[in-house]
Amino acid sequence: MKKRVLSGARPTGSLHLGNYFGAIKNWVELQDKYECFYMVADWHALMGEYANAEKITTWTHEMVADWIACGLDPNKSTIFVQSAVREHAELHLVLSCITPLGWLERSPTYKEQIKTLEHKDITNYAFLGYPVLQAADILLYKGDYVPVGEDQDSHLELSREIVRRFHHLFKCNIFPEPQSLHTSTPKVLGTDGQKKMSKSLDNYLACSEDQKVLQKKVLSMFTDPLRPRKEDKGHPENCNVFTFHNLFGNQGVEKIRKECKEAVLGCSDCKKELLGFIENFVAPIREHRESLLKTGEIRDIINEGNKKAIAVASSVMKEVKSAVFGKFAAK
Amino acid sequence: MKKRVLSGARPTGSLHLGNYFGAIKNWVELQDKYECFYMVADWHALMGEYANAEKITTWTHEMVADWIACGLDPNKSTIFVQSAVREHAELHLVLSCITPLGWLERSPTYKEQIKTLEHKDITNYAFLGYPVLQAADILLYKGDYVPVGEDQDSHLELSREIVRRFHHLFKCNIFPEPQSLHTSTPKVLGTDGQKKMSKSLDNYLACSEDQKVLQKKVLSMFTDPLRPRKEDKGHPENCNVFTFHNLFGNQGVEKIRKECKEAVLGCSDCKKELLGFIENFVAPIREHRESLLKTGEIRDIINEGNKKAIAVASSVMKEVKSAVFGKFAAK
Repeated sequence: MKKRVLSGARPTGSLHLGNYFGAIKNWVELQDKYECFYMVADWHALMGEYANAEKITTWTHEMVADWIACGLDPNKSTIFVQSAVREHAELHLVLSCITPLGWLERSPTYKEQIKTLEHKDITNYAFLGYPVLQAADILLYKGDYVPVGEDQDSHLELSREIVRRFHHLFKCNIFPEPQSLHTSTPKVLGTDGQKKMSKSLDNYLACSEDQKVLQKKVLSMFTDPLRPRKEDKGHPENCNVFTFHNLFGNQGVEKIRKECKEAVLGCSDCKKELLGFIENFVAPIREHRESLLKTGEIRDIINEGNKKAIAVASSVMKEVKSAVFGKFAAK
Repeated sequence: MKKRVLSGARPTGSLHLGNYFGAIKNWVELQDKYECFYMVADWHALMGEYANAEKITTWTHEMVADWIACGLDPNKSTIFVQSAVREHAELHLVLSCITPLGWLERSPTYKEQIKTLEHKDITNYAFLGYPVLQAADILLYKGDYVPVGEDQDSHLELSREIVRRFHHLFKCNIFPEPQSLHTSTPKVLGTDGQKKMSKSLDNYLACSEDQKVLQKKVLSMFTDPLRPRKEDKGHPENCNVFTFHNLFGNQGVEKIRKECKEAVLGCSDCKKELLGFIENFVAPIREHRESLLKTGEIRDIINEGNKKAIAVASSVMKEVKSAVFGKFAAK
């Protein structure tokens, strides 16, 4: 039997290339080797976005449309919305009852999220329990693996501690201890060449970027600051545009490196070439995504995914209630 | 339309007379005037009793059997188990997202519960959110009133604050602000005449006490300490046994008062008389309760009550999701 992978993302609307290369590309690759569950974490979104909650549904549709347009296959993976599977809230409450407050207050996840979302008002109760809901998300599907960056192991350690405490208190052994699935993903900088690509910094290229917007954004990307004129020799290893050429696996990348270093290829032409590659990548995604949203097909896909998720989650939740309250209670 | 009342209790197994006179008697009286929802708060129990969780189902059955034997009528009131209605966990999660951590840390409920349950290990995450779950319990039935003692108004104030915040953030007005329903209930001391009747102090008389145990417990109750011998004049107003005569509405209570004061009636005879009244009260409860548990009828009653509760709660939860995520999401 295939091992299970659980991953998810807060609904944020359109994906950008940072999201794609940092996560979704990997999700697509995992689909054949594992039984994958990909979740729209709308409860997690609500904690920070309650002031914009009415947008969460739209963002959900847009994000899932991008996921699928980028290669997630609803026939291979279970793609679902967290709030549509009520067992997430139930298991969250069970785990809340056995998770010491101190574990959460000391959690590096908590401290990091406070930093990540510092522009939001997140000093609410649910936010402190973020890792409890994360544990519920994973355990509800008996997830074996969670894809994370190498620096994020501690996030999962709390889930494992909760598993061990659950097994100890309720004298059972129903969950695997979820393990990290390390994948090295490139850090994608924004068009400013300075900071990580991010919507809030407005330095992003959407996976479904409009052709004209894309052109404007790519052609105004920052390049090698040590090469003010075409006649100066370039330093491709320090140039964000060159990094993008690499990301797109441009076959001619060695030629570009050489011609940049020898001051043959100018930055403007280099960006025009990159624009072609990105547009080739983006165009089919844009088209597919638009059709999924326009026809309403995305709703059917999400509904189907929700049903598949509910089937698994409700069976696991029965096991949980039986472990907690005894055999009779779960009937 | 009748206004709605919501109340509940943690499952603790058999009720004692302190529970009856302090709460259940009042619940029985409320049944005709209000549409009442009476809840077995097993999630609340799990927070403190996770080490004994497997007993919660048995305790639930015993407690509901006592409720009904004491006069709660499943045809008049909705009697249900919190964990069987998944919407409690869902609304708890929604309200968690909008409840500032500071409200909970400052909550008098929190401080008081820590004192009440000081012999339990309750430093878990759920316990801090106790008032959030309480609010969910009430709002899920759009409860208008919650019966509380006069000193407990602050408990409900937090629920009202959460209602106001929900309405403000999600621009709606779907919940009544739940109000206290003050009822003066007598403080029932235990058989030791010193402390409030309580299971953990083992100074209780169960509503379904076995006849022989009852006899032993009542005849060894503490009486007026200033009347060591029968020949001494008694002080009924300071005697716990006399208080019990009053509780049971003994018609001859004035005669007892007089004869106690005049040193005519001895404490032993006084307690024998009380025993008769208590046994008359307890015997039919004991019998009814036993039959409910033995025949398994209690399970059917609980299942029926759960269905009625789910019908109301799921409709309210749809309104909630629609208010939070927008009209489409709730479909």
